[in-house]
Amino acid sequence: MTTDGDRYERGLEALRTLMGRDRGPTPAPEEPPSAADLHRVFIEHCYGDSWARPGLDMKTKSLVTVAILATLGAERELKIHIRGAHNMGVTKDQLVDLLIHIAGYSGVPRAVHAARLAREVWREMDGR
Amino acid sequence: MTTDGDRYERGLEALRTLMGRDRGPTPAPEEPPSAADLHRVFIEHCYGDSWARPGLDMKTKSLVTVAILATLGAERELKIHIRGAHNMGVTKDQLVDLLIHIAGYSGVPRAVHAARLAREVWREMDGR
Amino acid sequence: MTTDGDRYERGLEALRTLMGRDRGPTPAPEEPPSAADLHRVFIEHCYGDSWARPGLDMKTKSLVTVAILATLGAERELKIHIRGAHNMGVTKDQLVDLLIHIAGYSGVPRAVHAARLAREVWREMDGR
Amino acid sequence: MTTDGDRYERGLEALRTLMGRDRGPTPAPEEPPSAADLHRVFIEHCYGDSWARPGLDMKTKSLVTVAILATLGAERELKIHIRGAHNMGVTKDQLVDLLIHIAGYSGVPRAVHAARLAREVWREMDGR
Amino acid sequence: MTTDGDRYERGLEALRTLMGRDRGPTPAPEEPPSAADLHRVFIEHCYGDSWARPGLDMKTKSLVTVAILATLGAERELKIHIRGAHNMGVTKDQLVDLLIHIAGYSGVPRAVHAARLAREVWREMDGR
Amino acid sequence: MTTDGDRYERGLEALRTLMGRDRGPTPAPEEPPSAADLHRVFIEHCYGDSWARPGLDMKTKSLVTVAILATLGAERELKIHIRGAHNMGVTKDQLVDLLIHIAGYSGVPRAVHAARLAREVWREMDGR
Repeated sequence: MTTDGDRYERGLEALRTLMGRDRGPTPAPEEPPSAADLHRVFIEHCYGDSWARPGLDMKTKSLVTVAILATLGAERELKIHIRGAHNMGVTKDQLVDLLIHIAGYSGVPRAVHAARLAREVWREMDGR
Repeated sequence: MTTDGDRYERGLEALRTLMGRDRGPTPAPEEPPSAADLHRVFIEHCYGDSWARPGLDMKTKSLVTVAILATLGAERELKIHIRGAHNMGVTKDQLVDLLIHIAGYSGVPRAVHAARLAREVWREMDGR
Repeated sequence: MTTDGDRYERGLEALRTLMGRDRGPTPAPEEPPSAADLHRVFIEHCYGDSWARPGLDMKTKSLVTVAILATLGAERELKIHIRGAHNMGVTKDQLVDLLIHIAGYSGVPRAVHAARLAREVWREMDGR
Repeated sequence: MTTDGDRYERGLEALRTLMGRDRGPTPAPEEPPSAADLHRVFIEHCYGDSWARPGLDMKTKSLVTVAILATLGAERELKIHIRGAHNMGVTKDQLVDLLIHIAGYSGVPRAVHAARLAREVWREMDGR
Repeated sequence: MTTDGDRYERGLEALRTLMGRDRGPTPAPEEPPSAADLHRVFIEHCYGDSWARPGLDMKTKSLVTVAILATLGAERELKIHIRGAHNMGVTKDQLVDLLIHIAGYSGVPRAVHAARLAREVWREMDGR
Repeated sequence: MTTDGDRYERGLEALRTLMGRDRGPTPAPEEPPSAADLHRVFIEHCYGDSWARPGLDMKTKSLVTVAILATLGAERELKIHIRGAHNMGVTKDQLVDLLIHIAGYSGVPRAVHAARLAREVWREMDGR
């Protein structure tokens, strides 16, 4: 039987692989102590429970994640995961293909929005 | 039989209790006169028809409102109602519990987004 | 440190309190063995991580859950949680108040839909 | 100053024009007395406050309503309003044009869903 | 049989009529060559396939588009299409009526958000 | 330059590969002639413009499609694409992994809904 600690550590490791950094709980002075539980939940639900599973490779999962976040219209998280997708080896051309898929299934406004964020990520990647 | 005027006044009073201020129609020069009807609708649908009803207390309603706005991904309104929830006596710890609930039911990205706004509200509350 | 087993057991107990029954994993012949992990995730994310926390009482949480599910337009889960809300002591009048709140914030179609499911639950509760 | 009664009556009249029938509150035995308030809210928010206004004609409003309900994925209300749109003089060809618009903006799955409901309405209209 | 070129040109012409400008593909240095396909898809799905069709006039389509974008909570696209609606002859009063309709069907938060963007457009139109 | 005919044919071929059948326009007696354009739009936007592109393989696209449809809560289309995903070689275990990912990002209710449809598809696949 695994412990919650295992799950959390496994999640942080997946996050490190995806984003090249550790985005674990960083308690802020305005947060109550219980906010640590919230940060754990974020890491455990997405990273410990899903990203750390081996059934689908991380490149595929990052494409799926970008598609979900674009469909939800979740701006900030979407930009982070477009970068994550490129970290996992998704090419710009493949991201364009994904955005065309999103346009058909989630509607053009969601894809236009995601395309604008992709250009921001690309500019940062190109060092412009 | 109540009049629309009653409904509107009742709504403004509920709004005053919740937000500590009166956010009724403030006509702007660029608005057509009919915009006054729009502002009335906003106050009447939410405040006159719901917040002013006695069946559920205002603290409970403010938790429900935060959950709905987080699920919709409605940024600005969400921040206003996180503050409103604290005005109604919701503690930071209880808001954290609500965010954990939202993470499970509406997905982690919606809860992450709401948590960021909560930190902004908390910083303002703490006078930082 | 708690173990995943604790979390799961805590979740099942909360589910039992809310629904008067144990809705834990019931493997079906068509499911692969890994589906057990999926059922655990469902219990753990919602029940183990949130419902089992003591910060907000279960009656409040059930009102919040109904509001989220109505906003999402999630039919089947919504009906289950309307029943759960009544199990936690929410009165029919309080549920009506919640539906009026949902009409204002999530729009009338979401509330109409929830009201239809509420009538189904009420008929079953009344033994009609 | 108008009274709530005016608003409600005005709404019922708009509903009668649109649907060719009066869909006002029909209390069911399982409903608590307060459910009458909920039915009033449904009529007042949509019909008394919007459909009864003269700024946009009812044909235009019915096209807008179908588009919103398709975007929300609200099945039952959507079918009722597709019929309403035809009652207001929208032709089948115009509804097809609307569905093509919805496909672009809300995504193909929402339009496919609406097209299936349109075929059901059309079969009923054709007496098949 | 039309060619894809026809469809794209037809779309650009509809866009020109609606927005008073040509918003066709403007390749940015950070974009891969395949991004041109994405821009074509945006123009073709919305403008070539829908706006260029004659069944519904452009004024009606612009009201429908504003309603969809408000329902989706798509901020930037919504502002562009509020301006487009006014270009097509929608008056400020008619836009207010549309926002009241959106409040009823998509909920007050979506309408509040759209009203804020409308005020921005109106200020720009008034040259303030 | 390709013609619309190419696009449509390319789309039908992708659809045939994915679903093992041709789901092109089948005019029903209740449909106006213009409905043929609607069916073309459905095929062209999703299949001709996206599925037929070579940048992402069809297995990956089918996982992305299931994730989008689950996030939208689109019942019927979701079931069709769960079957499509299995046609493209996605294993039951991989689908479970996808559902766990959806639970984290789009919330447990969306994943529970998709899991119920997956069991229906699995029963049909197993010949039960």
